[in-house]
Amino acid sequence: MSEYIEHDRSGNSVGIVEKKSHTFAAAPDELILDSGARLGPITLAYETMGTLNADKSNVILVTHALSGDSHVAGYYSKDDPKPGWWDIMVGPGKGIDTDKYFVICSNVLGGCMGTTGPATINPATGRPYGLDFPVITIGDMVKAQKALIDHLGVTRLLAVIGGSIGGMQVVEWAISYPKMVASAIMLASTIRHSALAIAFNEIGRQAIMSDPNFNKGDYYNGPKPDLGLALARMVGHVTYLSDDAMRSKFGRRLQDRDSLSFDFDANFQVESYLRYQGSKFVQRFDANTFLYITKAADYFDVRQQHGHDSEVKAFAGVQAKFLVISFTSDWLYPTYQSRDMVKAMKKNALDVSFCEIESKCGHDAFLLPNERQSTLINRFLKRIYEEENDAL
Amino acid sequence: MSEYIEHDRSGNSVGIVEKKSHTFAAAPDELILDSGARLGPITLAYETMGTLNADKSNVILVTHALSGDSHVAGYYSKDDPKPGWWDIMVGPGKGIDTDKYFVICSNVLGGCMGTTGPATINPATGRPYGLDFPVITIGDMVKAQKALIDHLGVTRLLAVIGGSIGGMQVVEWAISYPKMVASAIMLASTIRHSALAIAFNEIGRQAIMSDPNFNKGDYYNGPKPDLGLALARMVGHVTYLSDDAMRSKFGRRLQDRDSLSFDFDANFQVESYLRYQGSKFVQRFDANTFLYITKAADYFDVRQQHGHDSEVKAFAGVQAKFLVISFTSDWLYPTYQSRDMVKAMKKNALDVSFCEIESKCGHDAFLLPNERQSTLINRFLKRIYEEENDAL
Repeated sequence: MSEYIEHDRSGNSVGIVEKKSHTFAAAPDELILDSGARLGPITLAYETMGTLNADKSNVILVTHALSGDSHVAGYYSKDDPKPGWWDIMVGPGKGIDTDKYFVICSNVLGGCMGTTGPATINPATGRPYGLDFPVITIGDMVKAQKALIDHLGVTRLLAVIGGSIGGMQVVEWAISYPKMVASAIMLASTIRHSALAIAFNEIGRQAIMSDPNFNKGDYYNGPKPDLGLALARMVGHVTYLSDDAMRSKFGRRLQDRDSLSFDFDANFQVESYLRYQGSKFVQRFDANTFLYITKAADYFDVRQQHGHDSEVKAFAGVQAKFLVISFTSDWLYPTYQSRDMVKAMKKNALDVSFCEIESKCGHDAFLLPNERQSTLINRFLKRIYEEENDAL
Repeated sequence: MSEYIEHDRSGNSVGIVEKKSHTFAAAPDELILDSGARLGPITLAYETMGTLNADKSNVILVTHALSGDSHVAGYYSKDDPKPGWWDIMVGPGKGIDTDKYFVICSNVLGGCMGTTGPATINPATGRPYGLDFPVITIGDMVKAQKALIDHLGVTRLLAVIGGSIGGMQVVEWAISYPKMVASAIMLASTIRHSALAIAFNEIGRQAIMSDPNFNKGDYYNGPKPDLGLALARMVGHVTYLSDDAMRSKFGRRLQDRDSLSFDFDANFQVESYLRYQGSKFVQRFDANTFLYITKAADYFDVRQQHGHDSEVKAFAGVQAKFLVISFTSDWLYPTYQSRDMVKAMKKNALDVSFCEIESKCGHDAFLLPNERQSTLINRFLKRIYEEENDAL
C-alpha cells in the first residue's frame, strides 16, 4: 500500500505548520521510471500552506533542490529552531503569499525526508533498498509529483516554482504536462547540466563511495559513510557560494586565534565553516540520496530527453508562461545557461520574462532574502492569477 | 650531511636531460623556518638546462607549482613518455631559450620528488617524518632555493619565473632578496590566497586526512591514502579548468557508450577523466606533500607576512622588474588579484608590465602552449638581459 504523508499548515499567525500523516489509496502503487525499471509502492511526503480555494485555481507547487524537503516554510512548533527552507519566500504577505495561494511542497522521489528513497524498505527484500534503488531522473521526480497533484484533485497549477534542481523539475513539469501548468518560475537553474556541474557532483559521489563505511550503499544497520558525505557537502557548499561572497563572509580571517597555528587544524574561518557544514549535514541527510539526486541532475538535459538534440524542439509543446531568474555571481548555473533557455523559448513564441539579478551571493542567492526576487515573483504570480481568472 | 641532487641537461639537440646526483657540503644543514622550527639536514633536488655563462649573468630560476618537480623540460631518455612539466616554455628557441639562458629548477621544500619533505627519513627517529615534518611556508621554500643559488655561486638571478604556487615563490624572492633578483615573472598567481582557494585546498586535505589509510600521516610502511589523495586531485583538476574549457573538452559526451547507463559508473567523459586523473596522480605523489604545499599556499599573504597589513608596504623594498600575467578564465586566481598586486607595485614606482591573456583554459592556461605567453616572456627576458648588461 502506498501513502502520502501530509503536513498541513494550521493557519495560525506565527506560521506554525502542524505535522499530519495520511494514507491514501490513490498514491501511486507503481511508477514506471525513465530507465524502464518499476518502483513501488511509493510514499510521498508533502506539506501544504494556505487555503485551497473552491475552484482549486490557486495552487502553487514548490519544488525543492538537493538538500531540501517538503517543509518549505513556517515552524512546526515554537521550540523549532529553524523554519522551512524557503521561509524567506513563502508565507503570508511574502513573495509567494499564502494568504492568497495554496502552496504544496513534496519531498522528491529518491529523497530521505519521508518520500520513498534508497533508505526505504524494499518490499522485495524487507531491507532498505540501498543501491538496489533504481537510478531516477528529474522526469521521474515529476511523475511522482503529478500523482500527488492528481490525488489532490487539482487539474491545473497556477505555478510550479523552484531553484537549482528544483528549477529542473519546473521545466520538466512545463514540458511533460503542458496543459496542467499555467506558469513556471525557474531560479538559478539550467536545462542541461554542464561538465563543470557534473564534475563537482561526481567528486561528491566519489567521496561517498570511497568511504569505507559506504559498504556498497548497504550501511543502514551500521556506521554510515559520514566522512564521505561531509566531504561531498563541503564541495557543494563551495559551489553554492561565490568568490565575492566568500571574500566578504570569511576573507582570510582566522578562527578563534590571532596568528597562524602552523598545523593542520582549521586555522581560517572558511575552513571551520566548511567542516561545520559537513558535520551538520550528515546528521540529517542520507548519503545514498545524495548519490541519486545528483545523478538525476547530471542526467538532466532537455535537448536529449525531450528535443531530439534541440532545446528549441524541447519547448515546442509548452504552454506555460515563464519567469526565469538568474544571478550574476552564480557560477554553478551561470546566466548564459538561463539565456540559452530563454532563447529557445522565444523561438517557440512562449511568454517568457527573464531577469538576471545582481547578487554577490552565488548560486545560493535564490535562498537568501532579496527584495527584487520577492517582488518579481509576487507580481508575476499576481499577473498569472488575474490572466487565469480573466480567461475563465 | 646535506646534499643537492643535480640533474643537468646533456646539451644534445633532442633535449634529453641526463640525471645526475651530487652531494655538496654547502647544502643547508639546518633551516630556521618561519614557524620558528628547525629543519635539517636538507636535500634539494634540482635540474639545470642550458649553459652557465662566464659571469653567471644568464641564470633563470623556474619555480614549480603544487604537482611539479625539478624536471622542468626535456626528456631523460628516448623512451621517456613525457617531457618535463614546462616543456612548452623551456628549451632551445622557446619562451625561455636554453640556448641563451641557464635554467635552474628545484623541487620545493616539502616536496616528494627528491627534496626533503614529509616522506624523508627524520634523522631524530630513523623513520619518515610524516606529520612530524614542520608546517612550512612559501618563504621557507624560497630560503631553501636561496641556499642552492648561493651554493652554485650565483649572486644575481636574471629572472625568477613561475605560475600558480610557483608565482608565489617568485614574489617571495623579489621581496626577500631584492638585490639578487633582476626580474620576476609571475603567472596565474596571487599574493594573498583567497577564501575560495583555501576552501578547495581544505577539501583536498580533508579528503586525505579522512582516508582510513592516512593513519595520522604515518602510512609509509603500509597502504597509502590513495582514495583521499585521488579525491583531492579531482577537486584540484576542476579548479584548474574553466566552465568553458570543460564544455569544449567534455561537454556532456558519454564515455564509451551511446546512452545513459542508469547506474553509478562513470557515464560522462568528464567523470572518467577525473577518475583517471585521480588514480594517475596517486602513483607519483605523496599525500603528505599535498597537505604541506597546499597549507603553505593558504598561508601566503604578502600583506600579513611582509607588509604590516598593506600590500603597498610589502613591495616597498623590491627592486626587480616585474612581468605579471593573468588569464581571463582563471577563476582560482582571477585577474583582479593580479591587478591588485600590480597597483601595489605601481604605488612603489616599480617597473611592472601586466598582461591579461584571453584564454578559455582556466588556471591551467600557463602550462599550455600559448604563442602570446611565450612571446611576452621571451621579449621581456631579452629586454632584462640587455638592460642588465648595459648596466654593467
